[in-house]
Amino acid sequence: ARTGTSEIIYGAGKTKEQIAGIVTSMLEACQRRVLVTRLDGEKAAGVSELLAAGGIAMEYDPVARLGMVGDAKEPDGLGTVLVVCAGTSDLPVAEEAARTLEYLGNRVDRAYDVGVAGIHRLLACERRIRDARVIVAVAGMEGALASVVAGLASCPVIAVPTSVGYGASLGGVAALLAMLNSCANGVSVVNIDNGFGAAYQASLINHMK
Amino acid sequence: ARTGTSEIIYGAGKTKEQIAGIVTSMLEACQRRVLVTRLDGEKAAGVSELLAAGGIAMEYDPVARLGMVGDAKEPDGLGTVLVVCAGTSDLPVAEEAARTLEYLGNRVDRAYDVGVAGIHRLLACERRIRDARVIVAVAGMEGALASVVAGLASCPVIAVPTSVGYGASLGGVAALLAMLNSCANGVSVVNIDNGFGAAYQASLINHMK
Amino acid sequence: ARTGTSEIIYGAGKTKEQIAGIVTSMLEACQRRVLVTRLDGEKAAGVSELLAAGGIAMEYDPVARLGMVGDAKEPDGLGTVLVVCAGTSDLPVAEEAARTLEYLGNRVDRAYDVGVAGIHRLLACERRIRDARVIVAVAGMEGALASVVAGLASCPVIAVPTSVGYGASLGGVAALLAMLNSCANGVSVVNIDNGFGAAYQASLINHMK
Amino acid sequence: ARTGTSEIIYGAGKTKEQIAGIVTSMLEACQRRVLVTRLDGEKAAGVSELLAAGGIAMEYDPVARLGMVGDAKEPDGLGTVLVVCAGTSDLPVAEEAARTLEYLGNRVDRAYDVGVAGIHRLLACERRIRDARVIVAVAGMEGALASVVAGLASCPVIAVPTSVGYGASLGGVAALLAMLNSCANGVSVVNIDNGFGAAYQASLINHMK
Amino acid sequence: ARTGTSEIIYGAGKTKEQIAGIVTSMLEACQRRVLVTRLDGEKAAGVSELLAAGGIAMEYDPVARLGMVGDAKEPDGLGTVLVVCAGTSDLPVAEEAARTLEYLGNRVDRAYDVGVAGIHRLLACERRIRDARVIVAVAGMEGALASVVAGLASCPVIAVPTSVGYGASLGGVAALLAMLNSCANGVSVVNIDNGFGAAYQASLINHMK
Amino acid sequence: ARTGTSEIIYGAGKTKEQIAGIVTSMLEACQRRVLVTRLDGEKAAGVSELLAAGGIAMEYDPVARLGMVGDAKEPDGLGTVLVVCAGTSDLPVAEEAARTLEYLGNRVDRAYDVGVAGIHRLLACERRIRDARVIVAVAGMEGALASVVAGLASCPVIAVPTSVGYGASLGGVAALLAMLNSCANGVSVVNIDNGFGAAYQASLINHMK
Amino acid sequence: ARTGTSEIIYGAGKTKEQIAGIVTSMLEACQRRVLVTRLDGEKAAGVSELLAAGGIAMEYDPVARLGMVGDAKEPDGLGTVLVVCAGTSDLPVAEEAARTLEYLGNRVDRAYDVGVAGIHRLLACERRIRDARVIVAVAGMEGALASVVAGLASCPVIAVPTSVGYGASLGGVAALLAMLNSCANGVSVVNIDNGFGAAYQASLINHMK
Amino acid sequence: ARTGTSEIIYGAGKTKEQIAGIVTSMLEACQRRVLVTRLDGEKAAGVSELLAAGGIAMEYDPVARLGMVGDAKEPDGLGTVLVVCAGTSDLPVAEEAARTLEYLGNRVDRAYDVGVAGIHRLLACERRIRDARVIVAVAGMEGALASVVAGLASCPVIAVPTSVGYGASLGGVAALLAMLNSCANGVSVVNIDNGFGAAYQASLINHMK
Ligand SMILES: Nc1ncnc2c1ncn2[C@@H]1O[C@H](COP(=O)(O)O)[C@@H](O)[C@H]1O
Ligand SMILES: Nc1ncnc2c1ncn2[C@@H]1O[C@H](COP(=O)(O)O)[C@@H](O)[C@H]1O
Ligand SMILES: Nc1ncnc2c1ncn2[C@@H]1O[C@H](COP(=O)(O)O)[C@@H](O)[C@H]1O
Ligand SMILES: Nc1ncnc2c1ncn2[C@@H]1O[C@H](COP(=O)(O)O)[C@@H](O)[C@H]1O
Ligand SMILES: [Mg+2]
Ligand SMILES: [Mg+2]
Ligand SMILES: [Mg+2]
Ligand SMILES: [Mg+2]
Ligand SMILES: [Mg+2]
Ligand SMILES: [Mg+2]
Ligand SMILES: [Mg+2]
Ligand SMILES: [Mg+2]
Repeated sequence: ARTGTSEIIYGAGKTKEQIAGIVTSMLEACQRRVLVTRLDGEKAAGVSELLAAGGIAMEYDPVARLGMVGDAKEPDGLGTVLVVCAGTSDLPVAEEAARTLEYLGNRVDRAYDVGVAGIHRLLACERRIRDARVIVAVAGMEGALASVVAGLASCPVIAVPTSVGYGASLGGVAALLAMLNSCANGVSVVNIDNGFGAAYQASLINHMK
Repeated sequence: ARTGTSEIIYGAGKTKEQIAGIVTSMLEACQRRVLVTRLDGEKAAGVSELLAAGGIAMEYDPVARLGMVGDAKEPDGLGTVLVVCAGTSDLPVAEEAARTLEYLGNRVDRAYDVGVAGIHRLLACERRIRDARVIVAVAGMEGALASVVAGLASCPVIAVPTSVGYGASLGGVAALLAMLNSCANGVSVVNIDNGFGAAYQASLINHMK
Repeated sequence: ARTGTSEIIYGAGKTKEQIAGIVTSMLEACQRRVLVTRLDGEKAAGVSELLAAGGIAMEYDPVARLGMVGDAKEPDGLGTVLVVCAGTSDLPVAEEAARTLEYLGNRVDRAYDVGVAGIHRLLACERRIRDARVIVAVAGMEGALASVVAGLASCPVIAVPTSVGYGASLGGVAALLAMLNSCANGVSVVNIDNGFGAAYQASLINHMK
Repeated sequence: ARTGTSEIIYGAGKTKEQIAGIVTSMLEACQRRVLVTRLDGEKAAGVSELLAAGGIAMEYDPVARLGMVGDAKEPDGLGTVLVVCAGTSDLPVAEEAARTLEYLGNRVDRAYDVGVAGIHRLLACERRIRDARVIVAVAGMEGALASVVAGLASCPVIAVPTSVGYGASLGGVAALLAMLNSCANGVSVVNIDNGFGAAYQASLINHMK
Repeated sequence: ARTGTSEIIYGAGKTKEQIAGIVTSMLEACQRRVLVTRLDGEKAAGVSELLAAGGIAMEYDPVARLGMVGDAKEPDGLGTVLVVCAGTSDLPVAEEAARTLEYLGNRVDRAYDVGVAGIHRLLACERRIRDARVIVAVAGMEGALASVVAGLASCPVIAVPTSVGYGASLGGVAALLAMLNSCANGVSVVNIDNGFGAAYQASLINHMK
Repeated sequence: ARTGTSEIIYGAGKTKEQIAGIVTSMLEACQRRVLVTRLDGEKAAGVSELLAAGGIAMEYDPVARLGMVGDAKEPDGLGTVLVVCAGTSDLPVAEEAARTLEYLGNRVDRAYDVGVAGIHRLLACERRIRDARVIVAVAGMEGALASVVAGLASCPVIAVPTSVGYGASLGGVAALLAMLNSCANGVSVVNIDNGFGAAYQASLINHMK
Repeated sequence: ARTGTSEIIYGAGKTKEQIAGIVTSMLEACQRRVLVTRLDGEKAAGVSELLAAGGIAMEYDPVARLGMVGDAKEPDGLGTVLVVCAGTSDLPVAEEAARTLEYLGNRVDRAYDVGVAGIHRLLACERRIRDARVIVAVAGMEGALASVVAGLASCPVIAVPTSVGYGASLGGVAALLAMLNSCANGVSVVNIDNGFGAAYQASLINHMK
Repeated sequence: ARTGTSEIIYGAGKTKEQIAGIVTSMLEACQRRVLVTRLDGEKAAGVSELLAAGGIAMEYDPVARLGMVGDAKEPDGLGTVLVVCAGTSDLPVAEEAARTLEYLGNRVDRAYDVGVAGIHRLLACERRIRDARVIVAVAGMEGALASVVAGLASCPVIAVPTSVGYGASLGGVAALLAMLNSCANGVSVVNIDNGFGAAYQASLINHMK
């Protein structure tokens, strides 16, 4: 999407050739940096190879499944964006959010593995929750983290349900429904596993003059 | 169901004549007390009238929608059962559980309106949570209360999703799915709004020699 | 919820006595104004009567189904919040959002009945869309308005699906799913018909120093 | 299906032997051309090999996953059928529709990658939308394209939801529900990913004397 | 919707005052006729009264729940539109389609109560099926009528699932899913009970020069 | 299940060792024949090998995915069981039913590829439909075959939905819902793809003295 | 439906005038008896009044919600049909089945309130289960009765899920799914609450020469 | 989770390196034993190898997919926990429960393959059902076992639905819904296939002083 100096390509459903082609044309159109989301390891290797042939280097983060071309943007967000996630299995989505936030020029604070089953680990982050300008809350299974965090926070919370779980988690629909029904004010939700979309929304909020 | 001295009748789907008839025959069969669940005000008045004609008195709790005949059972449970609920709208289900627990001979502790959006009110009950022998956790909307409470408790938690909520709460299915996917150990779940069923299970646990 | 000077009570599932009681105690605890959401006409009349007995006046908006006690807050939001809605049937939810925004001290711009089937009426609002600091997009049926508006806007869009529609709209689930799957960046979603929740989130964003 | 001079075989769920056999018998029964849908690369190679042994040549389109035997039909449709699609990931379904339309003797206009998030790219096609006799609108994710296009068009729109998307797109059910609930008149919908079915319906409309 | 000389108002979700107001302004803007859909008896009486005060007469069809103002349009469609329906319970939706088709200037042929359980009654209409230019097929329960009719017809079939049925009909979702999965070519589907939408699409097809 | 002389083993979810072991013990317990359902090619080869080592021969039908040990039962059913199916893709389920019926001692008539889109091919079987004692109707996609056949038949119809289809067929749920909502009398339904279960029920009916 | 001497009218969705009219014409066409299903008390009174004016008497069963005109058919079924149901709340559906079976000329045995939670009451009916020619098993809540009965029986079981239950019973969908997944052989299922349809199928089976 | 002397790691969604690392650190923190759940054969081999390098031995149960490090806990539960399951396909979940119970220090009684279709095999276990202190009931397909067992038992039953089944079993959702709607008292339910969670709850109950 044409979003100013930072360009974003949705990598899923595109071949390595299509992706490398779009990156190259964007750079030719004086884009300073390009982010490619949802790149599995195999496709990332293919894209890197094609780009290297054109003298273009791509950094690849296997956890966040993100490809990054060009220099990182100097942080120019007004405050800090806090990314919290419930369990270690939620890391891929949390890191997609965190790395995208950094790519879009935000200072990021990470508080991982603070699921509500261990409430005291979450309460230890209360000051960081109060200092954040925006919070991205990532959780699978029952998706309760968003409500507890929004109850503690006075800033907006962007909630990301993940497909972590099995059986009645219904591929993340259980966490999605929980977050949509949050009893706490100040919560709005994005699609299951959409760390990128939550980061984009949080970054818009963190750059409002 | 033939469960010893305390008899229980599921009032929904039965006419006031059927209910009054079953109560009378149970008392004649030397039942000392009978509990009738899911009695709306109108039907309760009808049943009371029919029973009064036969010299039988019924106490009616309009919040818990319970009809109670005969004397309350002396508390003979081993410990205290704590009933927690998220918001005031969950009261009818929480009181169905609490009054049924008392009817079945349990000491009951009530901690109401402690939804996770106000985590500090819940944390104020930490000692009561640790002292409970069994906990019944009642919540609608996103159903997060069960996970937070189970994280704090070392005793079994019986979780009751309620149909409190609108839109994506899907009549309580959202809270049900959340509780089934709890990231905390020691949680098992009953049907939506089934305060009675949770009380019955908790009472069995609280009477194990 | 305890959120500073403006107090909010969720009116559904509470009796007129409970509501009047909470309002009175809040005013006694020096709250300057109280908002009561989801008040149907009948219950609003009952609450007004009880409050009047205590010398308290409540303004009632039958379209937004909101009860308002105390003086409106001087607009102190940083910019203007634009509320757009697709059709006249979406008005109750759009006005719940708009009046709540005004109650929370925001300048509100309203662009109603601009459903995507008449794209030129929406395009006529392009300047107002670009000038808004935050946008609340309200739509039932297929819920497409959020994507088109977010495509035009460079500010965050809070999307509210409504239960307006019949058959396959599944009580607003169709619009909810569409908004969650928006192909445009900068969209996050609240529960079906939750004009209040969207207004609260938009107001937080519009008051960030 | 027996539909006059152009024969169509649903390739999914049939072995390469069954397909090659049916094609051969159709040609023997003086069919001038045969279309085979839903052929993945591997099966297409197998069918081609078997047919070549019988002196029959098959053209294979890997994007549309279509096998075509015999000469293309001279365009005898009354007007032009416009195929629009939202994003590059929708191409396989859009090309299944476009190539099937050409096979059935229609002049086809293609306007791809005009998703509603970039409304101005769609508005640039307004004249082509007004000139079309029938429009096939292909979109995954939130499926909004059909409503916006039908709002601009005065001809019938056949909407095809695609399974492009993840999480809450529910394999295309979100786009399907959105298109069924379109607020614009003149829209009717076919099954998820059914480019062929939409092309067939559009071709019937474009050949009505 | 602004669709030339015939104006259509969606009556559900609008008050009788709003509807009467819109009708009056349309007539003042030289609309020759106005159609109001989804008018229950009570609201229709209210609208008629308000319009009569302004010297405007409205005809009301209680089965089709349609209000019609102004003279009927001379039939100028190219052929005949056949409306078939499965059972007498489907009549309200079939008549909404048939009367809307007549209002939009189409000659309409009606073949009612020809459900597939009595296949010979349907086969008796085979000639009328072949002569139709477009067919609207209306069925609830298992929604099989659309496939059988499309198998017999060589013209487009617009299928309308109805909410007639109980239990596993899921309010018409069963019939909707069946019609979307039709094994016959030349079928496209509109929303549950949307006789109006099917009529509009069929009328567009029947007026293509 | 202990069902007299014919023993049946549900092959899915069991290892080739478990299956071979159960077959061997059944034969030792004087079972004259054993049927093993849901055997894919690979597992069937493994079971055959193990049984051959013990001098036991197993016949394997790759379409019906059935393993058969011992001699076929002489047909002792009272009449003929007709198995009809809609399309060639439904063959695996139709043949699971037909071969199981033969194994249980029934004369079987097969009328395949008679989907309702080609109603005349089905009507050509009218006499065979009237002569059948029981009918097993197998169909995926929209599942309409059961209603049309039951309308023509005066004997019981056991309907089997299959998972043949894509998108909105929801893995056979669409066909299942259609068959449960059949407008024809004399239809009862088994689980998706359960040719075995339908054959068992039909065989019980065809052996009633 | 035209099914020989006994005529059946589906009363839901038809006015009392339509029903009385159809009954009268059927009797004039020498039908000896007519059954009208799904008649609530109010509509039954209306139909009775209209028929009485034409000298026709209708018997009405308020539990089974059935209207019966003409003399009952002499039992000519080959054996006895056993109707079992789980709880007292399932009576309306069980009696719709039992009275319809009697109307269609079957000897009926009733074993009510034998839910699996009281297995010994069910085991007390083992001999009646073995003697039945066909069994209709009616159950709401978890729908387990059909599997236990089919395990005990050697005759076909027609299973009827009822909408008795609340919350996760999803209006009978839970019982429907359970019965479709029965681990016992010899079970086939009809729509939720369709006592009539089960009776019709059981009667066909009980009249097979 | 910090649960005293026995530590549990959820193995799904973690790499063999992460698991081996957590085990090692737990043992260093004087944990006497560690249980790792949901380990498939391949990953278990990898973990064993890494641990062996550090001189730590892990026992692996391929049916229960459990990794066990350290000595088994002496049984100190107050009574016996009975694990019942319906069919052989349910074994993996039943053994996850049984081995976890043993790991947590409970005496375990196993009654497998006692599905309700063979009620007499279940009745043969009646005394063991009455003697148990807690029962874990594991069943897929229609999930009826929990209700029948709870009807026979006077102790709490923890019900575990499994994903064993096909078609309308919906991956275990059918069994889950059945168990939530159990007509018997004393049943509470855990997530689909969650043998571990049921064992944890049953062990809590079996260790209550
Ligand atoms: N994970 C994601 N989920 C949703 N949208 C995304 C994601 N990653 C990128 N996008 C959006 O997709 C747009 C690019 O789509 P395309 O032009 O098809 O590459 C970007 O502008 C992003 O807004
Ligand atoms: N709210 C409830 N939900 C589920 N089961 C209940 C409820 N209330 C009572 N029951 C059960 O229903 C049984 C009585 O059913 P019945 O014999 O039909 O009155 C009692 O033994 C209870 O186990
Ligand atoms: N495809 C099938 N679907 C459902 N049940 C089956 C199927 N095939 C066999 N069965 C039943 O499973 C029983 C054997 O189960 P088991 O003892 O676990 O092998 C047989 O008696 C059959 O009734
Ligand atoms: N099969 C399972 N399902 C749900 N929770 C589990 C399972 N196995 C282990 N757990 C829980 O997951 C916790 C560990 O999570 P983690 O810290 O991410 O390894 C343990 O304390 C268990 O309570
Ligand atoms: Mg907050
Ligand atoms: Mg705990
Ligand atoms: Mg934007
Ligand atoms: Mg249009
Ligand atoms: Mg056709
Ligand atoms: Mg028939
Ligand atoms: Mg049996
Ligand atoms: Mg019990």
